[in-house]
Amino acid sequence: MSDDETRATSPISDDAVLAANRLFYEALEAADLDLMGWLWGHGGDLSCAHPGHPPVWGRKEVMGSWRSVLAHGGWTHVIATDITLVRREGLAWVTANENLLAEDGAGVASALNLFEHDGERWRLIVHHAAPVYAGP
Amino acid sequence: MSDDETRATSPISDDAVLAANRLFYEALEAADLDLMGWLWGHGGDLSCAHPGHPPVWGRKEVMGSWRSVLAHGGWTHVIATDITLVRREGLAWVTANENLLAEDGAGVASALNLFEHDGERWRLIVHHAAPVYAGP
Repeated sequence: MSDDETRATSPISDDAVLAANRLFYEALEAADLDLMGWLWGHGGDLSCAHPGHPPVWGRKEVMGSWRSVLAHGGWTHVIATDITLVRREGLAWVTANENLLAEDGAGVASALNLFEHDGERWRLIVHHAAPVYAGP
Repeated sequence: MSDDETRATSPISDDAVLAANRLFYEALEAADLDLMGWLWGHGGDLSCAHPGHPPVWGRKEVMGSWRSVLAHGGWTHVIATDITLVRREGLAWVTANENLLAEDGAGVASALNLFEHDGERWRLIVHHAAPVYAGP
């Protein structure tokens, strides 16, 4: 196998995953349902757990949950911190602390975002977000 | 490629993933740190988020967190319900509701458990657990 062929099995840089992850938080902050829909994959095995709730499954249910969450979020800024990235062939997952800033306070959730490369770009296939308790 | 070779690329049944997942909840219920350690992988990119807390990273930190959680859990039963499984090549993830029953009440967390096959068996590499709020 040539070097080119070797590289061809893993052609996507970490930057592309992190860029998709940044877009996810831009969509969340801007309550941009169209961008959110563009970011997610299309399989029936998508899952999404919003803080405090068990997961919903499948493209239709996941996007329905985002329609509700983005309509009622109430935050003004979403700042992702403590970002980590792990890569495998065709899959990558990010953990991030989601700092949700609103007029009347702030909250933090811890998220796991799993992306799959569909041959074209990285698409979100799992979002699992957990409320993080304040204090020590 | 023969049929045998085709199968060899995906030789592990879903049962093996679900069996590993069952052992995880047995380890949790029995507060069995040795079994928990056997179930987890060994890479530096392991991560584990306990309910209400941001994730910890790496084998040493993950097992240290389990040592603390299992010593102070206080539950008598851990019943995993609503189990779903998604498979990719060499990776599989389970979502489950973790029903933690104690003498003085019960709690529910929603977990994402990511397993990786190391050539021998499925090992846990990510556990991300989120408290689920009671009520409607």
